[in-house]
Amino acid sequence: MSSFGTSLRLTVFGESHGEGIGAVLDGVPAGYKIDMDKVLLQMARRAPGKDKTATPRVEKDFPNVKSGILNGVTTGAPIACVIENTNTKSTDYSNLLKTPRPAHSDYTAYVKYGGNNDIRGGGHFSGRLTAPIVFAGAVARQILESKGVRIAAHIASIGSVSDESFDPVSIDSELINRLNGEAFALIDRSVEDAMRAEVEKARLELDSVGGTVECAVTGLPAGVGGPLFDGLEGQLARAVFGIPAVKGVEFGAGFRCASMRASENNDPFYYENGRVVTKTNNAGGILGGISNGMPVIFRAAFKPTPSIAREQDTVDLEAKTNTKLSIKGRHDPCIVARAVSVVEAVTAVALLDIMGAK
Amino acid sequence: MSSFGTSLRLTVFGESHGEGIGAVLDGVPAGYKIDMDKVLLQMARRAPGKDKTATPRVEKDFPNVKSGILNGVTTGAPIACVIENTNTKSTDYSNLLKTPRPAHSDYTAYVKYGGNNDIRGGGHFSGRLTAPIVFAGAVARQILESKGVRIAAHIASIGSVSDESFDPVSIDSELINRLNGEAFALIDRSVEDAMRAEVEKARLELDSVGGTVECAVTGLPAGVGGPLFDGLEGQLARAVFGIPAVKGVEFGAGFRCASMRASENNDPFYYENGRVVTKTNNAGGILGGISNGMPVIFRAAFKPTPSIAREQDTVDLEAKTNTKLSIKGRHDPCIVARAVSVVEAVTAVALLDIMGAK
Amino acid sequence: MSSFGTSLRLTVFGESHGEGIGAVLDGVPAGYKIDMDKVLLQMARRAPGKDKTATPRVEKDFPNVKSGILNGVTTGAPIACVIENTNTKSTDYSNLLKTPRPAHSDYTAYVKYGGNNDIRGGGHFSGRLTAPIVFAGAVARQILESKGVRIAAHIASIGSVSDESFDPVSIDSELINRLNGEAFALIDRSVEDAMRAEVEKARLELDSVGGTVECAVTGLPAGVGGPLFDGLEGQLARAVFGIPAVKGVEFGAGFRCASMRASENNDPFYYENGRVVTKTNNAGGILGGISNGMPVIFRAAFKPTPSIAREQDTVDLEAKTNTKLSIKGRHDPCIVARAVSVVEAVTAVALLDIMGAK
Amino acid sequence: MSSFGTSLRLTVFGESHGEGIGAVLDGVPAGYKIDMDKVLLQMARRAPGKDKTATPRVEKDFPNVKSGILNGVTTGAPIACVIENTNTKSTDYSNLLKTPRPAHSDYTAYVKYGGNNDIRGGGHFSGRLTAPIVFAGAVARQILESKGVRIAAHIASIGSVSDESFDPVSIDSELINRLNGEAFALIDRSVEDAMRAEVEKARLELDSVGGTVECAVTGLPAGVGGPLFDGLEGQLARAVFGIPAVKGVEFGAGFRCASMRASENNDPFYYENGRVVTKTNNAGGILGGISNGMPVIFRAAFKPTPSIAREQDTVDLEAKTNTKLSIKGRHDPCIVARAVSVVEAVTAVALLDIMGAK
Repeated sequence: MSSFGTSLRLTVFGESHGEGIGAVLDGVPAGYKIDMDKVLLQMARRAPGKDKTATPRVEKDFPNVKSGILNGVTTGAPIACVIENTNTKSTDYSNLLKTPRPAHSDYTAYVKYGGNNDIRGGGHFSGRLTAPIVFAGAVARQILESKGVRIAAHIASIGSVSDESFDPVSIDSELINRLNGEAFALIDRSVEDAMRAEVEKARLELDSVGGTVECAVTGLPAGVGGPLFDGLEGQLARAVFGIPAVKGVEFGAGFRCASMRASENNDPFYYENGRVVTKTNNAGGILGGISNGMPVIFRAAFKPTPSIAREQDTVDLEAKTNTKLSIKGRHDPCIVARAVSVVEAVTAVALLDIMGAK
Repeated sequence: MSSFGTSLRLTVFGESHGEGIGAVLDGVPAGYKIDMDKVLLQMARRAPGKDKTATPRVEKDFPNVKSGILNGVTTGAPIACVIENTNTKSTDYSNLLKTPRPAHSDYTAYVKYGGNNDIRGGGHFSGRLTAPIVFAGAVARQILESKGVRIAAHIASIGSVSDESFDPVSIDSELINRLNGEAFALIDRSVEDAMRAEVEKARLELDSVGGTVECAVTGLPAGVGGPLFDGLEGQLARAVFGIPAVKGVEFGAGFRCASMRASENNDPFYYENGRVVTKTNNAGGILGGISNGMPVIFRAAFKPTPSIAREQDTVDLEAKTNTKLSIKGRHDPCIVARAVSVVEAVTAVALLDIMGAK
Repeated sequence: MSSFGTSLRLTVFGESHGEGIGAVLDGVPAGYKIDMDKVLLQMARRAPGKDKTATPRVEKDFPNVKSGILNGVTTGAPIACVIENTNTKSTDYSNLLKTPRPAHSDYTAYVKYGGNNDIRGGGHFSGRLTAPIVFAGAVARQILESKGVRIAAHIASIGSVSDESFDPVSIDSELINRLNGEAFALIDRSVEDAMRAEVEKARLELDSVGGTVECAVTGLPAGVGGPLFDGLEGQLARAVFGIPAVKGVEFGAGFRCASMRASENNDPFYYENGRVVTKTNNAGGILGGISNGMPVIFRAAFKPTPSIAREQDTVDLEAKTNTKLSIKGRHDPCIVARAVSVVEAVTAVALLDIMGAK
Repeated sequence: MSSFGTSLRLTVFGESHGEGIGAVLDGVPAGYKIDMDKVLLQMARRAPGKDKTATPRVEKDFPNVKSGILNGVTTGAPIACVIENTNTKSTDYSNLLKTPRPAHSDYTAYVKYGGNNDIRGGGHFSGRLTAPIVFAGAVARQILESKGVRIAAHIASIGSVSDESFDPVSIDSELINRLNGEAFALIDRSVEDAMRAEVEKARLELDSVGGTVECAVTGLPAGVGGPLFDGLEGQLARAVFGIPAVKGVEFGAGFRCASMRASENNDPFYYENGRVVTKTNNAGGILGGISNGMPVIFRAAFKPTPSIAREQDTVDLEAKTNTKLSIKGRHDPCIVARAVSVVEAVTAVALLDIMGAK
């Protein structure tokens, strides 16, 4: 289903060109202050127009909160927000039902839903659905922050250009504050131009690029998570893979540790100011599916956005023949910058759920 | 919890040195033939002793089926199997409660369970718990096979040595049959010696190595899975990350697609013998979280096994000081070969669950 | 949580005097026609003003469907509806935070939510929340009807006045059609006046009455449900007890069978027109938690509505003293007639979920 | 599925005449002392032979704990117990596959499982499966007791003979202690002879009787549960209806409140020794789905046990004709006394789950 969680459950609804999209966050504990300006800031980081790599399609993403927050404080009842859809041109999508766009969900949704799904703008599979997800995450993160848990992600790479990585052992709260407010979040701001150049180059070539996002969680106490299928990695991965375009998730040293020796990969324990810490953090803050108190670090790989103007080979599902397709209209040549706030959002919801939503 | 699934639920129980370990698979449809010899074959692939890279610790893993299978046919009631624990030496693990082994779950379980967990042999976090998981997967896979769905994994890499990869577009059933029966599963058997040499080298250096496992699913019809948090990637990832030592999961081109252009990454559609297929398969058989009928391909990264004989830095949780630790006893310098059957097992259970367990 | 279901999940949100209330129904299969007029009819049966036993408070319950239904057909994506709140007077509820109304949720919600819950009009506990529940049920029932499953409930009793019961062995589709359209649903319409008289008597005495609702499901094939905790009774009961004011649920002969002999209670099997049926139906259509093809029959008990104008004893939670309370405003002296459509609604959602939402 | 729960999950497996039956309780918090003698006492209360109304079939119900409890303390890992099946005569059940016993699950399981289910002794639907349920409940109740929560049930009625009811406002801990140890639990022991006489009369007439069980929970703090579908009534009802033979569940005044006025049914609040209590307790301790601190009281109706020696009408599923059936062997003419411990058990598991299993 378009929902996940156990004690805190997030349900997302809406189709790109339908009446409205939104989310319901059920299980939020009562009594927590929610600053709507901070929520809007997170949603702004996600919205196009704020970042030069995005599309000029205007989307009004104002979240109308229908319930669950009264006088700026959570009531304990489900928090529902609705974002009305306005100002989108449907004519760009008219022939999709019979000629599926490669790398999109058109074909698979056609099979699953027997052709009944709303394909306009990608329907329920549209990246637009990440707007209410960011709303929900923005609420969850404020509750987490009141417990000392911070989440910060940045663009780890776009195409062939990489940003500096987090120091997995220690992440400065100043850095976290800065990243949390950036629409094009980078640890090393000097790589921004090179990244934007890669995107622009792709755009000019009627193409698109992918990238990776690195996310860190600090302040998570040790002992959160569980063994086997209740592990933190699995629960976070399930949430992150729920974001459209994600094709890989790795924790700590991730795929690199596959070619490491234990003598390099094992993180030794030692006491620092009475706290148990590790010298290195290849584990990404998680051992046996449970947090050990070190920063939780993970990376998500985003495939290049499928909608490109170049002509592509596809099939005509009605005529049952091969055919060609050209996607009209303006499309994002790269969604990685926008994805940063979405990664933080699903992480916030997943963590608050895992921590028991109290 | 140590369980997952919706229509088909797998619950695993047991501690490495406790009375017994086992699994309950609830929701299995009735009327399917289960060949116990095939189940035992899968369990044998996992067991040490069968493969030169493993430890001489003998484990008797015979699965006593308590319920759910009558005269070789599933009854529809939960299938429970119990594996009695015998012949393990406890003395190797006596000081772990206060001096946690680096990269193991000792410390995190200590925090979560307040020191009450059974730490002998890693307790409920022991790799031994993968035995009942393989049992459950072996049952699930036979049901899937009767529906034309095949699962095959192989060692993609150990240390710096790699095996050939699957041809993502087309996987031969002969290859699948061969791999399904191998304890050291490789597409290109000629790399075996080099892999075993890496492991032996690590062993002689009192170290261990990690690796990756590549898994393919063929015959999965298009339309399986769902949007957002109900996506196939998320559900499979959740299952695979439940296997101890997994630190990364990627689908199709995975992390590679992050540096690709859409013009390379998009898989064009075309008709072949009346079926919709794709020319390439960077999507790993999944679009928008739903299968498209092409082979589902994914890779999991396994960190090097943490137990090495070298002296390591750790803490003394009672004295609250730094100290050193040497792990006695014989330990697997590499568990990747054994992990292959476990990856197939969790994949089988997850897929049967996603397909509605009918 | 304010949600339930496995393959079909219903989430309800909203507070009586908040911005809006609504529901999200996630997992609805695609391709089913939804007649909105029929949906509105069900919602009208629930709404006050249509029935003389109800309150003059006007509620505009028009369900704005935001997603999931396109051109009158389900798309397979979550169906979300929002009902905007208008025209309610808040002044009637101002002192509830410190003086809880007896038999209401004021006190328990105060404890659970630390006083942060929205208590206006009962907040998230208000009977008003049954409006979106009826919407969701109205959608689910149309899908069930296309599979031959019909649901019909009626007022079994109000106070001391009883209606005729269903013939548990055979229920006429004409009767079902009639009941489905009535705001004051009765098998024997001649008892209506006596029932209304009981309600009016209570109203004049500044009191209220309770009652029971009997519900039947026809056309449910045998084999639906499961053993132990997956039984039909438990899943339906969980849904029905979710309706505010329900204090008891019984199936078939229910509490009566506790004083019966098996020789009376056992329903003998026999063949009728090639179908297996039972001579009597004390089982209420369910054996071992699984449907046997006979009508599923159950009854729900509704306590008298707590809000009465008489002065009542309560406590002052701030001063921590005993005090008295008089509830102002007009309140329903009986909600049983309205509850009929709500019982049908939750039954529809629960059944579609149990049947796998296909 | 044969399992329920969210933070604490109970899975039951086994078939009456299979290898073994058992349960896995996953999510039990670590560090709690479990007294196995107390567990065995609860299981003894359930076992036949201990009470004159039961069958002479001997069942060895010793629970072999495989994991989760070490040195008498919960480890936090799943607790699994297996009860080996011995000493049952299979010959009593040979013709059931084609001639279903009225009021049993034979027919419905036949339809659901296509005839593949193990019907011997009722298979997975056998009352025998309540043995591992009582084991799990016995563990859960000790954890609850350490938090001050007590559970006590008694035989409210057998046939036409009733026991005294609990004083819903105040239940003596002495009474609770006494009831917890009785195999034929009664508040007023003087009705025992009359009850046993009803059972004996039925037995001599080759018949059986049903009855009701009343259960109380004391010490549950206010604030437990939630609104709508997260209500205590619904979750407890779901657990109780999971017990074979239950046909009705009511809370507090239950079905009686349907004919009451609010002026009688509303429980006024007042302060007593600084605590908020109610003068009466028609609510059964639950308001708006949430506990109010008063004793939670509910009743469950048990149908008369279906297996009687009299000849009954049934069908021959192979020949598709009507036929007659006589059930051989000795059967319980009344299971109500045994059901008391089972009702307490599922209540314990459900409550510990609802309370977050901490």
